[in-house]
Amino acid sequence: MEIHILRLSHRAERDKRVTTHLGLVGRAFGAEKILIGGQRDPHLAESLMKIVERWGGDFSAEFVKSWRSTLKEYKENGWVIAHLTMYGMPVRETAPKVAKKAGPDGKVLIVVGGEKVPFEVYESSDFNVAVTSQPHSEISALAVFLDRLQNGLEFDKDFPDAKIAIKPCQQGKDILTP
Amino acid sequence: MEIHILRLSHRAERDKRVTTHLGLVGRAFGAEKILIGGQRDPHLAESLMKIVERWGGDFSAEFVKSWRSTLKEYKENGWVIAHLTMYGMPVRETAPKVAKKAGPDGKVLIVVGGEKVPFEVYESSDFNVAVTSQPHSEISALAVFLDRLQNGLEFDKDFPDAKIAIKPCQQGKDILTP
Repeated sequence: MEIHILRLSHRAERDKRVTTHLGLVGRAFGAEKILIGGQRDPHLAESLMKIVERWGGDFSAEFVKSWRSTLKEYKENGWVIAHLTMYGMPVRETAPKVAKKAGPDGKVLIVVGGEKVPFEVYESSDFNVAVTSQPHSEISALAVFLDRLQNGLEFDKDFPDAKIAIKPCQQGKDILTP
Repeated sequence: MEIHILRLSHRAERDKRVTTHLGLVGRAFGAEKILIGGQRDPHLAESLMKIVERWGGDFSAEFVKSWRSTLKEYKENGWVIAHLTMYGMPVRETAPKVAKKAGPDGKVLIVVGGEKVPFEVYESSDFNVAVTSQPHSEISALAVFLDRLQNGLEFDKDFPDAKIAIKPCQQGKDILTP
């Protein structure tokens, strides 16, 4: 499965940390790319790319001119669109449906909203997915959706060309610097 | 299962949003309480309690004088301590072990670090759990751990006495205000 993320309506100051964390979650949980709409902030994309350089893998982060055009383009290219919203259908039942529609070699675009998501996003999406119908965080919603979409297989992902890696241990820290 | 969260080393300005989101994730994913160590910020606890009042359930948020004493007290009272750290053992294998050790009526304290977690936290914990060994976010780590610890049963949780609730729908928004 190939997974990209489209983050809507980034606000340069207020959302810096949240959008960065969305990128890190995407990378750590098996997505290949985050596309960011809203206010451009080259530092943000750069700081994500620095983490990729250090921790390996081929994740990328870029700002897009218009999320609307990006969404349209992905739809036209046959990607399955899954929009994360607390108003959508329960993730437990819906994530397997998204995976089934995409198929093993399929492509999924995950749309993560900002403030006030326009109704056309709900309409353009193949699935509106609720990771609980309670308020929490885009960051947690994205992680749990990615975990359930891939059924835990994201934990087997390799991050080649890393300058630093961690070897799991019961207690303490075991850092590998190849 | 009864689940509390202990957040270490909160910094009033810098961590406001992250600690708030940790509280919201805890509430939405079936925990009963968040205890916060570090700089006191009564507004933060208040704003979480306002969400509880509006969205229902009996979650609570409070600052503690010393996380060290809190951790000690929970240990003495027989709670299973699970510390989330990227240096720990993989969540996929470890979450079921935590659940097994706690048992169905058991009690789990989840420790979420801040900057530089002292080694005694690693030592005092029954489990050091890594939600991937890659950098991402405390918020996503907590959500995925809670989901795997409870095996999705957190999605069946009720939030009694809510002033607002959302009914899942395929498209758009269906808000209930009883």
